[in-house]
Amino acid sequence: MEKKILEICFSPAMFGAHADKEAVVVIIDILRATSSICTAFANGVSRIIPVSTVEEARGMKKNGYLLAAERDGFVLDFADFGNSPFNFSPEIVKGRVVAYSTTNGTGLMQMASRCHAVVIGSYLNFTSICRWLINQDRKVIIICAGWKQRFNLEDTLCAGAMAEKLMADGDFTTVCDSVHASLDLWHLAKNDILGYIEKAAQRSRLRDKGLDDCLEYCHTFDITTVIPVLQEGSLVAL
Amino acid sequence: MEKKILEICFSPAMFGAHADKEAVVVIIDILRATSSICTAFANGVSRIIPVSTVEEARGMKKNGYLLAAERDGFVLDFADFGNSPFNFSPEIVKGRVVAYSTTNGTGLMQMASRCHAVVIGSYLNFTSICRWLINQDRKVIIICAGWKQRFNLEDTLCAGAMAEKLMADGDFTTVCDSVHASLDLWHLAKNDILGYIEKAAQRSRLRDKGLDDCLEYCHTFDITTVIPVLQEGSLVAL
Repeated sequence: MEKKILEICFSPAMFGAHADKEAVVVIIDILRATSSICTAFANGVSRIIPVSTVEEARGMKKNGYLLAAERDGFVLDFADFGNSPFNFSPEIVKGRVVAYSTTNGTGLMQMASRCHAVVIGSYLNFTSICRWLINQDRKVIIICAGWKQRFNLEDTLCAGAMAEKLMADGDFTTVCDSVHASLDLWHLAKNDILGYIEKAAQRSRLRDKGLDDCLEYCHTFDITTVIPVLQEGSLVAL
Repeated sequence: MEKKILEICFSPAMFGAHADKEAVVVIIDILRATSSICTAFANGVSRIIPVSTVEEARGMKKNGYLLAAERDGFVLDFADFGNSPFNFSPEIVKGRVVAYSTTNGTGLMQMASRCHAVVIGSYLNFTSICRWLINQDRKVIIICAGWKQRFNLEDTLCAGAMAEKLMADGDFTTVCDSVHASLDLWHLAKNDILGYIEKAAQRSRLRDKGLDDCLEYCHTFDITTVIPVLQEGSLVAL
């Protein structure tokens, strides 16, 4: 079998250099959007509608949707709640449709929507999503949501962990320097992920805002097997 | 003294997220543009005019300039020579003005030209440029030219080496995850840089085109003390 190609894109700003409409795209935004999305589906949300702008978010709330919306870690004042995975509990989201707007994650989904498929990854659905990617006969592009178009460490580590898993059985190959860098950084960090990301800018931001209670949770492997997938502009469970 | 800020930008595509008109920008494109530029000034070139497009390059040649121009490692057919540092020998460039157009490097200079200062870095002028940066009372942004808007390993390693040097004496600080990643990758690679970059995509590209004779040279520290600086659209020695 011909080996499939793996690429990692470190920022939405670089997506144009990686975009390929034949590829499957995995979006990761570990702290906290894609961890929250995986949690929501694990807890029975029926659908998540990604919303890019604050204006759209306000419109969704007016139209009666349950709204999760934050900017820079702060809950928008008209939203029902923000971006912590702990907000997406079964009592709140089970069977509901949620509109969701975040600083980095949701705009990226719209950018990636021209690719063959867009799925949502995190540590929380790690093994499940890696297995699914291995079973597709497609090039895979892992996109790190980053922070305001910048590189970040926490998404890079998860991308490296996925690269390790995908390349372990030899059916993926790469000529992408970002994959090599992510693998090397993951190997440095894997025995103490939380220790490693002490130096990450987002770790400090969350601490400063008292939002770091989810740090350990967001770095927990395999609490769910759900694979959120983008279908006609909304996220649903595969 | 207040600590100065250090940032690293992994790709021209991300420059908008880092740009700061008060900052000093260091551009690095190790294989091969900024190594060639440093070589040219070490060998007495009087001025280098960066040219972005193939059309502009053609115009410069028509206007009588000595023209160095390549795309994807191939010399443009109307150019005098391409992008190897060995082309910029004293016999060819001493006292001359050279127009220079490359795949990744020259467009970036124009983008960065709104910042306080733009200087050209490589291993070849490493200690000299680091000393100069330490002596400026300015934020420093190291920009990796990358490859067609993508991240690359060879520029990241040099950025990491510079970060190590700048932060060693404690007068620079950072909240930039790219700096931490570059430092960690540099520490992995520093004892065998050429061995490490065997996995770099550009290393393979240069091998495939028979252009890898300059690999060791481009990773040699301190063959010159020259600091090329952008002044009114041209590079001159500081």
